[in-house]
Amino acid sequence: MTPLMRWVLPDHIQDALPSEAEQLEALRRRLLDAFRVRGYQLVMPPLLEYLDSLTTGAGRDLTLRTFKLVDQLSGRTMGVRADMTPQVTRIDAHLLNRRGVSRLCYCGSVLHTLPSTLTATREPLQLGAELYGHAGIEADIEILGLLAEVLRLADVPATRIDIGHVGIFHALAGKAGLVPDREEELFDLLQAKDLPELQLRLADVAEPVRGALLALPSLYGGPEVLEQAAQRLPPDPEIVVALGELRVLAQALKDLPISFDLADLRGYHYHSGVVFAAYGGGSPAALALGGRYDRVGAAFGRARPATGFSLDLCELVWRLPQMQSAGAILAPASDDAALAIEVAALRVRGEVVVTALPGHEGTWNEAGCDRRLMRRDGRWTVEPLQGD
Amino acid sequence: MTPLMRWVLPDHIQDALPSEAEQLEALRRRLLDAFRVRGYQLVMPPLLEYLDSLTTGAGRDLTLRTFKLVDQLSGRTMGVRADMTPQVTRIDAHLLNRRGVSRLCYCGSVLHTLPSTLTATREPLQLGAELYGHAGIEADIEILGLLAEVLRLADVPATRIDIGHVGIFHALAGKAGLVPDREEELFDLLQAKDLPELQLRLADVAEPVRGALLALPSLYGGPEVLEQAAQRLPPDPEIVVALGELRVLAQALKDLPISFDLADLRGYHYHSGVVFAAYGGGSPAALALGGRYDRVGAAFGRARPATGFSLDLCELVWRLPQMQSAGAILAPASDDAALAIEVAALRVRGEVVVTALPGHEGTWNEAGCDRRLMRRDGRWTVEPLQGD
Repeated sequence: MTPLMRWVLPDHIQDALPSEAEQLEALRRRLLDAFRVRGYQLVMPPLLEYLDSLTTGAGRDLTLRTFKLVDQLSGRTMGVRADMTPQVTRIDAHLLNRRGVSRLCYCGSVLHTLPSTLTATREPLQLGAELYGHAGIEADIEILGLLAEVLRLADVPATRIDIGHVGIFHALAGKAGLVPDREEELFDLLQAKDLPELQLRLADVAEPVRGALLALPSLYGGPEVLEQAAQRLPPDPEIVVALGELRVLAQALKDLPISFDLADLRGYHYHSGVVFAAYGGGSPAALALGGRYDRVGAAFGRARPATGFSLDLCELVWRLPQMQSAGAILAPASDDAALAIEVAALRVRGEVVVTALPGHEGTWNEAGCDRRLMRRDGRWTVEPLQGD
Repeated sequence: MTPLMRWVLPDHIQDALPSEAEQLEALRRRLLDAFRVRGYQLVMPPLLEYLDSLTTGAGRDLTLRTFKLVDQLSGRTMGVRADMTPQVTRIDAHLLNRRGVSRLCYCGSVLHTLPSTLTATREPLQLGAELYGHAGIEADIEILGLLAEVLRLADVPATRIDIGHVGIFHALAGKAGLVPDREEELFDLLQAKDLPELQLRLADVAEPVRGALLALPSLYGGPEVLEQAAQRLPPDPEIVVALGELRVLAQALKDLPISFDLADLRGYHYHSGVVFAAYGGGSPAALALGGRYDRVGAAFGRARPATGFSLDLCELVWRLPQMQSAGAILAPASDDAALAIEVAALRVRGEVVVTALPGHEGTWNEAGCDRRLMRRDGRWTVEPLQGD
């Protein structure tokens, strides 16, 4: 391998260089602070766990996306996390062991074996918030409100938040008596809104379930969709409850740009109730995904109601204008005590002060310096650094 | 696998739960801020790279410690970083492409196939600072001063900083005409200060090199060691330069608890000049390691002088007393506009305000609430939450 090839990164893997890294760090802090003051406590699960722990309850999709490694200590298969939500669920279920509500948040890198889209990274910086222990719709309202607030704080406000409900498809699939394989096939066709193919595949399903499943792809839009759904879907108790929950959301979140999409079931294997996807920043792909996943905790031996969202911090930063550097001040190498005091004072105020090293005249602009400390009339003063 | 086993983590892998995670986050910010105002720019290299890029120039040790994965996109072998320093060197060499000085810093998780000691984690949170482009000893002085400052800011001040110089061993091994395998064997014996075995293995090496190599393990202590070394080691130019550099350090850093150890060569494959290890917090193992590694950049096609240090943020936090929680304020679920204003004001001041969810009376203490917002005489006031 030649030296020139050694600095090539794998496809869909990237460095964050100073300007982008500073933006990521600033946004990370702003969002974690917003979580903190709302009672969401930070946890840091490990990058590495036994594969079963990482992928349990979360479906085949996540297993395929997870890099596998052999543990030299135990001989068992480990995985590098591809999603932090199951880890946080494990922490809530076992380590915190609370009876009441837990609010948790996290921010960390995850790895994917393959990128999810042509432009996606294989190393998202996942940031999210999860609310455990409350089954009522109030928790979903809080989480959706928090998601909108987080996108606003990130200067990439949501232009649309699509809300669906897994309970509706779940009830219809149950009534149709679908075997799991077929349920999954149907799920994919609904996601793709492939109506002709859906009609073929549902030919042997009895009415009114057949008509209801075929109606789902057209049930999207504003809150009026919920009334159309009440008319076109059978009055199964699970469906009535789901539509009731969505009506409460429509009312509680009427100040947010929400819309409903009853065929949007992303994360069906994982989720169990309200699901949502937030869009903004001109991106065709969702910026954040979330929903209710009351069943995941059971895999860790303690079923707890759960709802939350997560997003990729890199995707947000890539949508922001590049930050203007605040510049830096060059200080001469000197033992002068007055200089040391001045440098310390500037740094306390947040200024970047770089100490000159001998022999690099003419390169300090390149290192970001736009000013310098000079002794004038016995006092150290900051003046412009020009044509260095 | 039973649910009860799914939450067991691999050995030497751990979660950081809320209290520890908050300490890690606070320390991470404090240290990255200290780097920033000194002109060290943050970079975020990826977790995953081609194996050659991660381990090049860094020796067999690092290769053995690196988890390997197959890239499904290219079929090539990738590694999960076990050390971020080579990555940052790659960034300096190629992506920044500066003529003058670069100061860079970083903080991220790394993974090790096996723990380095019986109590070490396999997932350190590596934090470090690197200074590129300056070959003079001024850079080493700055880096050693920064290391001491960082440990002081972390409330785990250095009680001892051991300084060595790879140039001395390198010169002696060259004069002895040792083949690489034997050089490595000797290196291990020196590290272990195994004098009897050293005497056996050096039987066929001519004086004065033999005597000099045997003298190294006893050359440790205060600055007086440097004068002893000047007498006991041959006046090879490389040795004279190395001792001269160490004398400059002894003078410049006389306010720090430094000592010298001419047999301490840790990271020999990687380092090329001054090397050091900082101790403190009652730990027998070093808290931070660093030194000069001018040769690593060459592997990326652009040799640049380089010096820096890194440490594991988890190791520092494990040495701190557990943080007292600042508590939280429980706010009732209510649409009252005055309440919303009060909650927002409290949060701006950094207070944690948790919104109550219905049906969880009696559990809010457990969630960290020690106060609550109550409406008294038409005003929202914070009062103690007792026996919730």
